[in-house]
Amino acid sequence: MSNLTAVPGTLEADVVVVGAGLSGLSAAREVRRAGREVVVLEADDRVGGRILTEEWAPGVHLELGAQWIGDTHHRMRALATELGITVYDQFEEGDTSYELGGRVLRGAAFHRAHDADVAAVERVLRELDAMAATVDAAAPWTAPQADRWDRITVGQWYDAQGLSPVARELLEICTVGILAVPTVEVSLLGLLFNVVTCGVSADLLSESEGGAQTQRFVGGTGQIPQRLAAELGDRVVLEAPVQEIAVAGETVTVRCRGGRTARARRVIVALPPTLAGRILYDPPLPAVRDQLTQRMPQASAHKSFLIYDEPFWRADGLNGQLISEAGPARMTNDSGMADDGPGIVLAFLEGENARVEGRWPAEQRQDALRAELARHFGPRAAHPEAIVEGSWADKPWIRGCYNANPGPCGWTHFGPALSAPIGPISWAGTETAVAWSGYMEGAVEAGSKAAAEALQGLEVSERQ
Amino acid sequence: MSNLTAVPGTLEADVVVVGAGLSGLSAAREVRRAGREVVVLEADDRVGGRILTEEWAPGVHLELGAQWIGDTHHRMRALATELGITVYDQFEEGDTSYELGGRVLRGAAFHRAHDADVAAVERVLRELDAMAATVDAAAPWTAPQADRWDRITVGQWYDAQGLSPVARELLEICTVGILAVPTVEVSLLGLLFNVVTCGVSADLLSESEGGAQTQRFVGGTGQIPQRLAAELGDRVVLEAPVQEIAVAGETVTVRCRGGRTARARRVIVALPPTLAGRILYDPPLPAVRDQLTQRMPQASAHKSFLIYDEPFWRADGLNGQLISEAGPARMTNDSGMADDGPGIVLAFLEGENARVEGRWPAEQRQDALRAELARHFGPRAAHPEAIVEGSWADKPWIRGCYNANPGPCGWTHFGPALSAPIGPISWAGTETAVAWSGYMEGAVEAGSKAAAEALQGLEVSERQ
Repeated sequence: MSNLTAVPGTLEADVVVVGAGLSGLSAAREVRRAGREVVVLEADDRVGGRILTEEWAPGVHLELGAQWIGDTHHRMRALATELGITVYDQFEEGDTSYELGGRVLRGAAFHRAHDADVAAVERVLRELDAMAATVDAAAPWTAPQADRWDRITVGQWYDAQGLSPVARELLEICTVGILAVPTVEVSLLGLLFNVVTCGVSADLLSESEGGAQTQRFVGGTGQIPQRLAAELGDRVVLEAPVQEIAVAGETVTVRCRGGRTARARRVIVALPPTLAGRILYDPPLPAVRDQLTQRMPQASAHKSFLIYDEPFWRADGLNGQLISEAGPARMTNDSGMADDGPGIVLAFLEGENARVEGRWPAEQRQDALRAELARHFGPRAAHPEAIVEGSWADKPWIRGCYNANPGPCGWTHFGPALSAPIGPISWAGTETAVAWSGYMEGAVEAGSKAAAEALQGLEVSERQ
Repeated sequence: MSNLTAVPGTLEADVVVVGAGLSGLSAAREVRRAGREVVVLEADDRVGGRILTEEWAPGVHLELGAQWIGDTHHRMRALATELGITVYDQFEEGDTSYELGGRVLRGAAFHRAHDADVAAVERVLRELDAMAATVDAAAPWTAPQADRWDRITVGQWYDAQGLSPVARELLEICTVGILAVPTVEVSLLGLLFNVVTCGVSADLLSESEGGAQTQRFVGGTGQIPQRLAAELGDRVVLEAPVQEIAVAGETVTVRCRGGRTARARRVIVALPPTLAGRILYDPPLPAVRDQLTQRMPQASAHKSFLIYDEPFWRADGLNGQLISEAGPARMTNDSGMADDGPGIVLAFLEGENARVEGRWPAEQRQDALRAELARHFGPRAAHPEAIVEGSWADKPWIRGCYNANPGPCGWTHFGPALSAPIGPISWAGTETAVAWSGYMEGAVEAGSKAAAEALQGLEVSERQ
């Protein structure tokens, strides 16, 4: 990797990639493999985008960003294998602890007390699956009922399902765990897109976190973008925020903060839509594309890792997961290493909790988290050795996680502009993926698709 | 006015204003009047922002942007008087034509046929007024029921009012006429903010367009920004898109496309929130401010003026207004001059119509508009001398009209970041106004407030 200030002159390539997240790096790799020259411009002083592994102690990796892969994440599995990175199973043995309906109950006790609530949630998930079966993830706006479903919010539709307060809350928590915004901010069609892009709702929404989050990378997810960047070498340029993309004839000129430029014949913008919208395009982009980027805000997610000398809850038959109506964390996870090092609970603050408790002073929030974990995992949980936190909305080159979903009417009125190339500009980023959009798996697919567009564009222009 | 390319060196001032719309120019004027030096940087090659008057023929002015002032727009009236610009009454004599419930009916006939529907709409408006009375336009998130109202969309709440299809449609058309997005894209709290910022719903939503749109400017609205800019002279710099605002110590450095800079101690960003969010801030802005700018999309509005040799509908007892379920225009207006020159019908395509018919090829859309007007105003309406159109989402330095409203949870989770200054940065633009937010009146208020903040900031720093 190089730094913009250290690279002389104008950068030249066949393809410029904007953004060295997983999607941009995947795209760059495929461009290189096809024998074309590439330059990747990254605004930040590191690669990885929404992947960020912190080595808290030797061999102890905290995933401040993307953490898991699922059973059907075939592109990610192949990529990890190629890069020599192995996986380990997410720890899941034992009971989940629930705080719903004013009581803390674990595993079987919760299910006995709330059998009907769980059944009602499962009925709703089956109904979502039936609706999602009519939605094409590549074109959600073509679903027979797209127009109606895009005018209803998920929250509104959930409210109409005749659920008990506990069932409704359970559904909210599981859904916010995916969308990272309150369910009233996303349309029913938007949720159905999230279901179908991942297969079925059980892969996505079920409390067991089955499909999407079954395994982790030994040594941390961060190795993936780092190894991809290492392959690309000096073609990855850091601290190079792109502010302008100008197209003139066969040439695309990409201008960075400070005035330095890169020139190519194609460009791949591998950023979340809202950040892609902050670049100045010359000539200006069509209205539909610009208004789309105004309508896909980055979600609101904050992770807090509570680190203990050992995962003491395991001996107590607990899996380190909780689901809570009280918060601040609505969900937690056992985020320990493969080799059972220290005990690590990852507390998720998502949607409203990221915006309320996530903005509290750290001491106030951490006190509340310690108290919450003690309610579920016992008094030892009140005394972590350390708490490490990360809030994605603060990061200037990210501005929110996990991904972006449009609000009502977004898919039907603007959806086609999400991934359709415009002249020599292709769009990548996990939001543009068809399968597992919003996940690392989707980032790789999107990078691959954008690279194919760019390569084909180069060929066409050379044949002319 | 000057052009950035013609101005040598770094621009220096006490205050830099970003954006030469009405709000920015108003702010600059007040800064100058307080004896401080100001530079206004405008991205476009003209001043006015969302004000744009086209002189179609000598003395015939088409308002492609802001057109009317209301009876209580005291700041705008005072400003116009100071600038020597007079007003004339919007033509309103005669019947409105309705196309609802599958029939075209005019005035009294419609009211006879739909007496109960109109009464039901009026009942809903009274209920909105009662709710709005509990909302503080300066802090909508403090309303006792803010949390609940911000999780319901306007469309959802309207649907729950037990209205007939005709009454529901009438309410949709009137509301979209204000918001310029489908009612499912804005929360009930957002609509209540729109009501209370304008007084009562009758000022805003009533089909008579009473409060907000009673008079127009002789010679065109465009004279107002032009005369304000003329007063400021070379302090207004055109074709100077701001890409970066850097704060270091007591100095703010504002960098334009191409690298030219302006330096000051305070800056006023007088742009719609979404465009303000496209600037790179150094140091980065707080998460809450950044995420707000991701959540206030510019609305979708398109104006089509159909121009005839005379306003023939007037002789037929029609006022040139229609309200239609069929479209493409859901509303029209007689946009003739003060002196009864040519006949001009202004057809509004707002919200979904701006996004559907607004994207049609011009010929297809204009054929549909001619046919629609003929249904209401007779066969002469099918043969305009000319059609002039303007779509605001296309304009690269505007990207949507009339203004911006956040979606569900926007006001309660991000509202305080809309107008609170951040260090030496103040925010203007009509969206930040308390009274008549979204209107020219609000733009002037917002400019005035931001200028006061900047002036006070200068004084405080000088006393230290």
